Amino acid sequence: MEKLKKYVSVKDEDQFYHQGAVELLVFNFLLILTILTIWLFKNHRFRFLHETGGAMLYGLVMGLIIQYATKTSDVESGTVYECEKLKSGRSTLLINITNQVYEYQYKREISHHNVNGHQGNAMLQKRHFFRNLGSILTYAFLGTAISCIIIGLIMYGFVKAMVHIGQLKEWEFHFTDCLFFGSLMSATDPVTVLAIFHELHVDTDLYTLLFGESVLNDAVAIVLTYSISIYSPKENPNTFDAAAFFQSVGNFLGIFAGSFAMGSSYAIVTALLTKFTKLHEFPMLETGLFFLLSWSAFLSAEAAGLTGIVAVLFCGVTQAHYTYNNLSPDSKMRTKQLFEFMNFLAENVIFCYMGLALFTFQNHIFNPLFIFGAFVAVFVARACNIYPLTFLLNLGRKQKIARNFQHMMMFSGLRGAIAFALAIRDTESQPKQMMFTTALLIVLFTVWVFGGGTTPMLTWLQIRVGVDPDEDLKAEAASQSASNPDKNTTKAESAWLFRIWYSFDHKYLKPILTHAGPPLTTTLPEWCNPVARLLTSPSAYGDQLKDDDTDYIINNDELTENYESSAHMPVWDRTGSTQATGKEDIHEGDLGLGGYKLQLEHTAHQPQMNPLA
Amino acid sequence: MEKLKKYVSVKDEDQFYHQGAVELLVFNFLLILTILTIWLFKNHRFRFLHETGGAMLYGLVMGLIIQYATKTSDVESGTVYECEKLKSGRSTLLINITNQVYEYQYKREISHHNVNGHQGNAMLQKRHFFRNLGSILTYAFLGTAISCIIIGLIMYGFVKAMVHIGQLKEWEFHFTDCLFFGSLMSATDPVTVLAIFHELHVDTDLYTLLFGESVLNDAVAIVLTYSISIYSPKENPNTFDAAAFFQSVGNFLGIFAGSFAMGSSYAIVTALLTKFTKLHEFPMLETGLFFLLSWSAFLSAEAAGLTGIVAVLFCGVTQAHYTYNNLSPDSKMRTKQLFEFMNFLAENVIFCYMGLALFTFQNHIFNPLFIFGAFVAVFVARACNIYPLTFLLNLGRKQKIARNFQHMMMFSGLRGAIAFALAIRDTESQPKQMMFTTALLIVLFTVWVFGGGTTPMLTWLQIRVGVDPDEDLKAEAASQSASNPDKNTTKAESAWLFRIWYSFDHKYLKPILTHAGPPLTTTLPEWCNPVARLLTSPSAYGDQLKDDDTDYIINNDELTENYESSAHMPVWDRTGSTQATGKEDIHEGDLGLGGYKLQLEHTAHQPQMNPLA
Repeated sequence: MEKLKKYVSVKDEDQFYHQGAVELLVFNFLLILTILTIWLFKNHRFRFLHETGGAMLYGLVMGLIIQYATKTSDVESGTVYECEKLKSGRSTLLINITNQVYEYQYKREISHHNVNGHQGNAMLQKRHFFRNLGSILTYAFLGTAISCIIIGLIMYGFVKAMVHIGQLKEWEFHFTDCLFFGSLMSATDPVTVLAIFHELHVDTDLYTLLFGESVLNDAVAIVLTYSISIYSPKENPNTFDAAAFFQSVGNFLGIFAGSFAMGSSYAIVTALLTKFTKLHEFPMLETGLFFLLSWSAFLSAEAAGLTGIVAVLFCGVTQAHYTYNNLSPDSKMRTKQLFEFMNFLAENVIFCYMGLALFTFQNHIFNPLFIFGAFVAVFVARACNIYPLTFLLNLGRKQKIARNFQHMMMFSGLRGAIAFALAIRDTESQPKQMMFTTALLIVLFTVWVFGGGTTPMLTWLQIRVGVDPDEDLKAEAASQSASNPDKNTTKAESAWLFRIWYSFDHKYLKPILTHAGPPLTTTLPEWCNPVARLLTSPSAYGDQLKDDDTDYIINNDELTENYESSAHMPVWDRTGSTQATGKEDIHEGDLGLGGYKLQLEHTAHQPQMNPLA
Repeated sequence: MEKLKKYVSVKDEDQFYHQGAVELLVFNFLLILTILTIWLFKNHRFRFLHETGGAMLYGLVMGLIIQYATKTSDVESGTVYECEKLKSGRSTLLINITNQVYEYQYKREISHHNVNGHQGNAMLQKRHFFRNLGSILTYAFLGTAISCIIIGLIMYGFVKAMVHIGQLKEWEFHFTDCLFFGSLMSATDPVTVLAIFHELHVDTDLYTLLFGESVLNDAVAIVLTYSISIYSPKENPNTFDAAAFFQSVGNFLGIFAGSFAMGSSYAIVTALLTKFTKLHEFPMLETGLFFLLSWSAFLSAEAAGLTGIVAVLFCGVTQAHYTYNNLSPDSKMRTKQLFEFMNFLAENVIFCYMGLALFTFQNHIFNPLFIFGAFVAVFVARACNIYPLTFLLNLGRKQKIARNFQHMMMFSGLRGAIAFALAIRDTESQPKQMMFTTALLIVLFTVWVFGGGTTPMLTWLQIRVGVDPDEDLKAEAASQSASNPDKNTTKAESAWLFRIWYSFDHKYLKPILTHAGPPLTTTLPEWCNPVARLLTSPSAYGDQLKDDDTDYIINNDELTENYESSAHMPVWDRTGSTQATGKEDIHEGDLGLGGYKLQLEHTAHQPQMNPLA
């Protein structure tokens, strides 16, 4: 009898195992279909549906089929539930992978004819980033906080109304739950919009503002969500508990700073390891180390009760700026391609999964009033974020953010993978299930409708497209030198933050963490000499003369000239391998702050070398 | 009260989650340590400990620490158990990854100074493979079956003895269990030995024999294990049931053929997809498709009750021979590097995990008698496989397999990842736990002792090392043309199997599945013309004249001349990117049958092109 039972249980396990394989297979097929569709769309230059939108659509259709065509079997629904559990519960593999590569998510399309222009574009973007840093930080920190509170307040109003008409019990949904929903819905993900911006060469300032906001905003929203979820007022959860509130604010700051420190530390360790070992003789080992240490940053942060995504984001930024420069050329390419591929796959996996979740998740709660409220709240909150903050920022900005840019930023508040991932993390209670359903609908709606409407919107708002970065830069430089004969003033006004950071980075961080930069013996005080000599790379002494970092601190005129000359240099760079095929995505892990630096360096040192010869 | 409970459960979940992160982190650190050690070892040219042995050692030490230093916490042991469950049970992710890349596992070290020789080496190996195909198939199929039965019989004797002295109950351990153990212990994994062989340029025939045996032997052992595990005699499990036995043999053949068909079908679909779409304009999509379809082959086979590993092995072989040639140069490099990296990581993960499992697996059963029996059985079975079969093979072979080669093959019967993976799949019952423990010990012992003893053993057996493939080939050709004036006889004798296969492949498969080969309109009968025209790639018509496949069917003299000339051609190939650093592992997914073909083609078509320019 017992034996029989054992056999049956083995059979059952087998069935589950096979069921699992079938499900993964279905998922694989969805991805394969997505890939083929992406090709079709790219080939026909359809812009109204981004690949992520397509992935979601296939997921949706397949979810529909799974839900309504194979409903009969008990095993099925059990497995689907388990599948959901698997993802939402302990094994956050799916989401981890996404987080893991989020740092490398933001990409640009390179077109064949514009490789030199691209160099300019990257450097231009660095300037644009630092020039707009104040605005970006304002949108990302203050804006996200505003968005969270506004959504929380509006949702609290709707919840009160729902309690009033009897759809909800008073004690089911507290104000903190509303704030929780507000924080997770504040993570914007304009990946679709940015892809189109890039393809159409939309104004660089607008691109930089949106790009910078979306990167940091994710980090803020994640930490905010986490802080709110551990906020526990001592007594009545509906009264305002000042102590608990300030503790929450403290938590937020602590977690943010901690995650930042954790991520950067791992990057620094990797940089030092790759600098001081001769690991570059074995490219595979370098790539392995790069990958494992980035992942360790995520895991360490999670294990320490911080947020892994934020840690890995900052780890990635730092890695791209320092570590990447220490790698061998072979390993650079391998590492870049590995992360590109993981990003590509993870992005499609998560959007496919979102579509699938709409029909296969078993505990959806579709509450029309709540959903309506959420849509209203999300749009009002975005408006309260963009318009007032821009008004304030414009008071201090030399180059005002124009009306049509503001509208475009308002329009670009798509919700995506992060909002979904935060919502699916906890779907135990009914309020959380309601939030998850609503979040999913908002993601679907914004990705499809707003993502698809980007190009028409650009036209309607008369936003400049087809901007040639070279021309843009020259025109700007010309107009500035015309209106401001005193160049130093311009520089001081537009990039003082940049200069401070640059100087510190150039004098201390780069020489310590990489082989580039001036020798530490010249930049550190004399009594540090023994340490300085130890840390300075032998190759740094030789680099002193041809130090091409200087192009960042020269003024605009010189910068333009510098472009002119560098544009005719023989270029082997990260974009090189794409020229045979004309198109490819390049990761921009460092917010445009690092990668292209190395390309110049490489060009300068090995002007004619074929890296494969 | 309920609320409190909820809070507690959330806390618990959090704790588990953090615990999970900590464990993964520990694992990551092990891998990082392993990578750094590999570098140290490679740097100092230590050969006695292969990287996998190192990985295992670190796993062991860490397992020891986890087991004895942190034993107190209940949560801990619970989690460890769950971790074990996770791996052995439903979520075979770890093992799947390994399986996934097993097809690309066999690698070779390329040294800087020998790129042209390498070409020769690859082609030579193709000839060697086909010349030894009969022997390889004999060792892999017949040899593995012999090994399985011998181990089964010897273990049955030991089990009887254990029953006799009261260590085991009669009904606990049937003959089928012994056979199950025999089949899983028959999977050899001489990755360490092959790495050393390659580095030292050991005789190509010996290398090919071992390499070919180990690839196919894995497939046979896996299917054998599976067939035995589903063998269920109708009545008394200890009597011999002829019907059940023949059903098992039928199962074996069916599963093997089915897995082969499944794997090849996916590869053919991928080849056709990459041939007939213009996907190569977007390299990332190609790589994605390649990856997902290979994985789908694994999943489909598993879902259909076949064996995924075998399916993915044959899928990989076929992909490398056909699909890979359809990819864009960019995508080729990306795909190659992706699989290399996954292989590198997976190999180290599984060996690290093996070390870890020795101390962290909670249900070890160390039975000295059983372990002693298993060691005896494994060595006796290897001897019964190699010596008698070689004797029989030598009766028919022109080039006899020498005594010292036989001893070396006997010595190279290491057990590795596959044996471990098969053993850990089922650890529910006590006999299975005893088998797992024993298998683990045998793996540890053979990898360390035999792997470490390879170099001394080569010296002791006076096996030729430092063989220059070019010289080898020339000498061989000279001696053959001297002793056999009739070249056609030589060809017919040494490679008739190869010629049949080659002709079919060249005339039909290559033209259908890739852009290479003669147009189908010339090779297919006339009435097939409409289909032939549809399937033939436009570029095939142009290729007719410069079809370099011919170098395979020319005789030895011409082959040697062909080398001479090709050795001076400008080479851009898969090894190219490694020249800057001097060393790298290259995957040989196609048993040396495909990859290098493309390198010749590429050379012929684009003699001076810099792929990155």
